[in-house]
Amino acid sequence: MTAKPTKDELRLLSSRDRLLHLIYTQQLSRGLLEDLFVVAEKARGMYASGIGATFLQNCLPNKRALLYFVQPSTRTFLSFQSAAEILGISTARVTSTSTSSEAKGETPLDTVHVFAMYHDLIVMRYPEAGFASKCAQYFRERDLPKHIINGGSGMDQHPTQALLDVYTLHREFYRKGGIDGKRILVAGDLARGRAVRSLIYLLSKFEDVKMDLVAPASLGLHDDIKEHMHENEMPFRESENLMDFIGEADAVYMTRVQDEYDDVEPGGELDYDRFSLTPASLDAMSPNCAILHPLPRRSEIPVSVDSDSRARYWEQVENGMWARVALIAHVLECDLRIKTA
Amino acid sequence: MTAKPTKDELRLLSSRDRLLHLIYTQQLSRGLLEDLFVVAEKARGMYASGIGATFLQNCLPNKRALLYFVQPSTRTFLSFQSAAEILGISTARVTSTSTSSEAKGETPLDTVHVFAMYHDLIVMRYPEAGFASKCAQYFRERDLPKHIINGGSGMDQHPTQALLDVYTLHREFYRKGGIDGKRILVAGDLARGRAVRSLIYLLSKFEDVKMDLVAPASLGLHDDIKEHMHENEMPFRESENLMDFIGEADAVYMTRVQDEYDDVEPGGELDYDRFSLTPASLDAMSPNCAILHPLPRRSEIPVSVDSDSRARYWEQVENGMWARVALIAHVLECDLRIKTA
Amino acid sequence: MTAKPTKDELRLLSSRDRLLHLIYTQQLSRGLLEDLFVVAEKARGMYASGIGATFLQNCLPNKRALLYFVQPSTRTFLSFQSAAEILGISTARVTSTSTSSEAKGETPLDTVHVFAMYHDLIVMRYPEAGFASKCAQYFRERDLPKHIINGGSGMDQHPTQALLDVYTLHREFYRKGGIDGKRILVAGDLARGRAVRSLIYLLSKFEDVKMDLVAPASLGLHDDIKEHMHENEMPFRESENLMDFIGEADAVYMTRVQDEYDDVEPGGELDYDRFSLTPASLDAMSPNCAILHPLPRRSEIPVSVDSDSRARYWEQVENGMWARVALIAHVLECDLRIKTA
Repeated sequence: MTAKPTKDELRLLSSRDRLLHLIYTQQLSRGLLEDLFVVAEKARGMYASGIGATFLQNCLPNKRALLYFVQPSTRTFLSFQSAAEILGISTARVTSTSTSSEAKGETPLDTVHVFAMYHDLIVMRYPEAGFASKCAQYFRERDLPKHIINGGSGMDQHPTQALLDVYTLHREFYRKGGIDGKRILVAGDLARGRAVRSLIYLLSKFEDVKMDLVAPASLGLHDDIKEHMHENEMPFRESENLMDFIGEADAVYMTRVQDEYDDVEPGGELDYDRFSLTPASLDAMSPNCAILHPLPRRSEIPVSVDSDSRARYWEQVENGMWARVALIAHVLECDLRIKTA
Repeated sequence: MTAKPTKDELRLLSSRDRLLHLIYTQQLSRGLLEDLFVVAEKARGMYASGIGATFLQNCLPNKRALLYFVQPSTRTFLSFQSAAEILGISTARVTSTSTSSEAKGETPLDTVHVFAMYHDLIVMRYPEAGFASKCAQYFRERDLPKHIINGGSGMDQHPTQALLDVYTLHREFYRKGGIDGKRILVAGDLARGRAVRSLIYLLSKFEDVKMDLVAPASLGLHDDIKEHMHENEMPFRESENLMDFIGEADAVYMTRVQDEYDDVEPGGELDYDRFSLTPASLDAMSPNCAILHPLPRRSEIPVSVDSDSRARYWEQVENGMWARVALIAHVLECDLRIKTA
Repeated sequence: MTAKPTKDELRLLSSRDRLLHLIYTQQLSRGLLEDLFVVAEKARGMYASGIGATFLQNCLPNKRALLYFVQPSTRTFLSFQSAAEILGISTARVTSTSTSSEAKGETPLDTVHVFAMYHDLIVMRYPEAGFASKCAQYFRERDLPKHIINGGSGMDQHPTQALLDVYTLHREFYRKGGIDGKRILVAGDLARGRAVRSLIYLLSKFEDVKMDLVAPASLGLHDDIKEHMHENEMPFRESENLMDFIGEADAVYMTRVQDEYDDVEPGGELDYDRFSLTPASLDAMSPNCAILHPLPRRSEIPVSVDSDSRARYWEQVENGMWARVALIAHVLECDLRIKTA
C-alpha cells in the first residue's frame, strides 16, 4: 500500500468500469467493492447446490490460470486455486524462477510473456513489488488480452487481502446498516502490517467510519496513512491498550505483534496483554462485536476464543476464497452470467 | 496398526454406518469392506465407457480435496489424486510445512483449519501418527463438515493400503467362494512391514482364513498380532522357508526384506532365496495361487515373474486407485448414486 | 536427433497409421504432420467459443496424464499441461525421482509401471535419452495400452519442439503455397542446438526446401545432418554472416549463441552482430519473411523486434500448445471426433 500508482497507471489497468488487472488496493472503488460482494454472495449461494456448482464450473470453459508464486504463501495460493476451480478454470503452478529460462539469460518479462501464451490469467506473487504492474503495462502495450492479479507481491500491496477483510465486514454489517458509520478497532503491529494499512484505506471509501488504533508506541501506524484519514475526514483515536476502546467497537481487527518487536524496542518488555484478547477484554466487548484476524495468529487470540460467537476469523478465511471467485469472475467477465443466473 | 484407538475415538470418526474420517484400519468392518468393494467394482465398470466416466466426474461438483503430504510418498499421492479426479474432484497439494505459517508461530491445528476452509476432504500423510486423529476430533468438536483420510501417517497406520490388499484378494476369490476359508501365506519382513500387520488384522474379520507366516527369525511377526489371531481363532503356522508352505497357499503376499536386515542380524548372512520366488517355489505353487506384493519390490520377486499368470501385484496397484475411489465416494456420500446408477 | 532408432524400433512405436508413442522426431512423417496440423487448427478454432471448448473438454473423459519431468523445463511442462487440460484430461506431476521408491531399490522401469497403472499417458522428460523408448517397448511387450510422449529427454531428442516449429512454418505459408519450395535461414549455434537439427530433418520431408546456414565457424552444423541433406537432395549454403543470405529468406529461424562459446573459441571475440537481428538485417529482410526462435532468446533478437510485423516467435509459443493438443488427441484417439465435429 505504500506504492502509490499514478492516475495514468491506474487508468491503464482498467477498461471502462472493468478491471483488466488488479495490482493495487487503490483500484478498488466503493462501487466495485459492492459489485464484487454481490457476485461473491451469489456464487457461494449457487455453489451449495450441485446444479449451481455445475453452472459455475461451466462459466469459463476456455480459460486457464497460472499461479506464479515466486514468493511462497501456501494459504493465498490454495485460496486462489480453489477459487479458480470453483469457476471451472484449471490452474498451473510455478513456484520458482530457478528452473525457468532466466538462468539462460531470459528477462523476467519474456518469461511472463511465455507463460501468458498458455494462460489467460496470471496470479502473481513476486518479490519485486512493481513487477506485476510492469507486466500489466507490457500486456497493454502489446494488446495481449491477458490478466494479472497481484497475489501479494513485495512488502506493501496485497489487494485481495484488503478485499476479503472488507467483504467480511460487509457480511457482518449487512443487516445492521452496512459498514457506514461503524467504529472499527485495529490492534497489534500497525507499523508493518500491510493488511491494516489497506483495510483503513478501503474503509475510508465508506461514510463516517471511525477508527481506533491500538499499538505499542514503536509499532504505531505510519504518518502517511494518518494523513490519508485526515484528508478523508475519517476520525481516529490512538492508544497503547485495547481496553481503552474495546467496549465501543463494532468490529475488532487483531493482528500479530511479531517476534521482531524486541529488535525495535530493545529496552523494554512488551506487555502483550494490552494487545491481546484476554478474558477482561472479551467481557468488555459488545455482544455484537465481530472479531477479525488476517491469520496466522499467535497468543493475541487464544484458541478458546474460537468458540466465542463473535469470532469471525475462520469465516474470514473462507470469505477470502469467495472474494477471489468474484474477482476472477469480474476480470474474466463471467460476473454478469453469475449475477443473472 | 500399533496405534490402538479407543472405542470412544472410533465412535467419533463415524456417523451411523458411515465413516466421516478414515484414520485407523480398525474402522474397516467386514460389512463396510464389502460395501466399498461393490462401489469400487461399479465405478471401474462405469469408467470404461465415456458416458459412465462423465457421470462419475459429475458426482461431486462442489467438493474439493487437499492432498497434505508432509511425508513424501509419490505413489500413494498419485493414487489418491487419480481417484479424486475420477470423481471430478479437483485436488490441491501441499507437500511441506516449511512454506506455511508455522514458521510464524501458527499451531499445526490452525494450519489444518485454514486448509479445511478451502477443502472438504484432506488426505493426510503426516510424520506424527496421531495427528490425523487429532484433526478429526478437532473438526468434530467444531461441527465442521470436513473429512480426513489417513494417507499413511507415521510408522504404523496406512489403512488404504490394507483396504486395497483385501480388495485384491476379494477380486481374486470372487468366483471361488470369497476370502472365507482361504489359506494366505505372507513372507518377508513381518516385523516392520505395517502392510502385513494390517492385512492379517482385516483378514481376521473373515471366516476361517488360515495364515502361513514366513520370515527370518529376527524379523518375525510381533506377539501382539499373534495374540490377535489367537483371540479370533485364526490358525497360523510359522517357518523360515517359503518352500515349507507354498504348495498349499491360495495367495502369497510377498514383502521386501529390507537392507537394514544386516543391522538386525549382524552375525549371519541371510539366505534371501528362502523368502523369494525362485523357479523352485514357483513350481511348487498351485496354478491358481495369486501373487501379491505392496511394492516396491526388490529381488524377492524377479521381473520374470511379471509374465506369470498368477502375478497380481500390478493389478493390485490399480486396485488401490479404485479402492480409494470407493472410499472417497463413501466419505463424501456419493456412493449410493454410483451404486444405483 | 543424434539417436537413430532402428526400423524395428520405429515399427513398435506405432499401430497401423497411428502413433502409440512419440519418442523420436523420425516418427513424424509428412502425412502425419499434415494430419496433426489439421487437428491443431480445428481444435484452436473450436476452443475460441464456449461450446467448442466444452466439446473439447469432454472428448476424453476417462483419460489421465502424468507429466514425469525429472529434468526441469517449466515452459514445456506448462505447454503440455495446458494442452492436456484443453482436452479435459487431468494431469499429475512428478518432478524428481528422489521421493519415489527408487531409493528403496526399485528399478526405474518398475517406477514407471506403477505410474502407468494410474495414468494413460506419460509425458516424459528424463536425463537418460533412451529411457522413454525403453518404457515404450516395455509397455508393448506387456500389452499395456499406455502411451509415452517424449517431452525432451537427454541432449538430442525433443520431437514436440520440432513439431511446433514446422507447424509455425505451415501456418505461415498456408496461403503462400505451403512449405514446399521455401528458403529457410537458420542462424546461431547450429552445432549444439537440437531444435535446428530436428527442424532441418523435418523440412527434408517437404519438396524443394532450400536451407541457408549461418553460424560461427566453430559452431557449424555437424556433418551427419549435412549428409542427410545431401541424401535428400536438399540444397544448402553456409556463411558466418546473416547479411549474406537474409534478403532471400522466406523464414529466419534464430537461435541463441550460448555463453559457452568462449570455451569453444578461446582466442577470438565473437562478433554477435553477425548472428543477430540488427537494424541493417531487418532492413535487408523481405517484408514477408517470418522470424522464428525457439526461445529463450538473448541479444540475437532485440525486444524492439517484438513489434515488427514479421515476428512469429510469440505465436510460435502458442502454436506449441496447439501442436501438443493435436498430438495428444492423436495418441489417445480423439482426433477423428475433433476433425468431424
